[in-house]
Amino acid sequence: MREDEALRAANAAYYLAFARGDAEAMARLWAQEGVSCVHPGWPPLFGREAVLASYRDIFRNPLQEEIKLGAETVLRAENDGRVVCLEQVGQALLVATNWFRRVDSEWRLVHHQASPLTGGPAEAKMPATRH
Amino acid sequence: MREDEALRAANAAYYLAFARGDAEAMARLWAQEGVSCVHPGWPPLFGREAVLASYRDIFRNPLQEEIKLGAETVLRAENDGRVVCLEQVGQALLVATNWFRRVDSEWRLVHHQASPLTGGPAEAKMPATRH
Repeated sequence: MREDEALRAANAAYYLAFARGDAEAMARLWAQEGVSCVHPGWPPLFGREAVLASYRDIFRNPLQEEIKLGAETVLRAENDGRVVCLEQVGQALLVATNWFRRVDSEWRLVHHQASPLTGGPAEAKMPATRH
Repeated sequence: MREDEALRAANAAYYLAFARGDAEAMARLWAQEGVSCVHPGWPPLFGREAVLASYRDIFRNPLQEEIKLGAETVLRAENDGRVVCLEQVGQALLVATNWFRRVDSEWRLVHHQASPLTGGPAEAKMPATRH
């Protein structure tokens, strides 16, 4: 259970880095190897450098809206864990999977994928927490 | 490299089971535990029973279109591996992540997420293979 909490904390740290537009904090969160990322509507990105560059681009976008996070579900198997959660971005609701690997006792992101929920908020629990 | 090929084969088996509407083959592909699934536009599903029921529903849908698969990228770390690929479903192009765990020498699905690519086919390699 302690590792589940550590996973939730790593997930919260991801959204805090996003909210602050903090590229250095984002870089510390991602693993060195075996990294992939699918931003909403984007083709997949592979490799640490491409993924971190995408966040720097997003952080420079003045139209990027705030993300409200909610309905986190943690699934973990030893050193492999993910948080599936909802993101509210403006009027849009997205399902995000943030996948972590435990490297040297730290949970590091190896994959992020966010996809729009088209059924509307009634189909899912609304985000409860805000980062 | 042999395990990468085994992963690709497991991924191909997923799309073959889908094309055939074969619920039993689909059930054999998914792991017993720690399972999640995000169909395009759907809220996340958790647990083997909920995920397998969703495929049975999809297989009964007469409007479900064929999926053409392409641009597979394999990322693997020991007993944990994923295939990120493109799905062409009718006129829509999706990015799918199929995440496997090796259990008793077999690669079993623990997560599927498919999200629409909004930039259009020019931004990504078109599917090259067909299942």
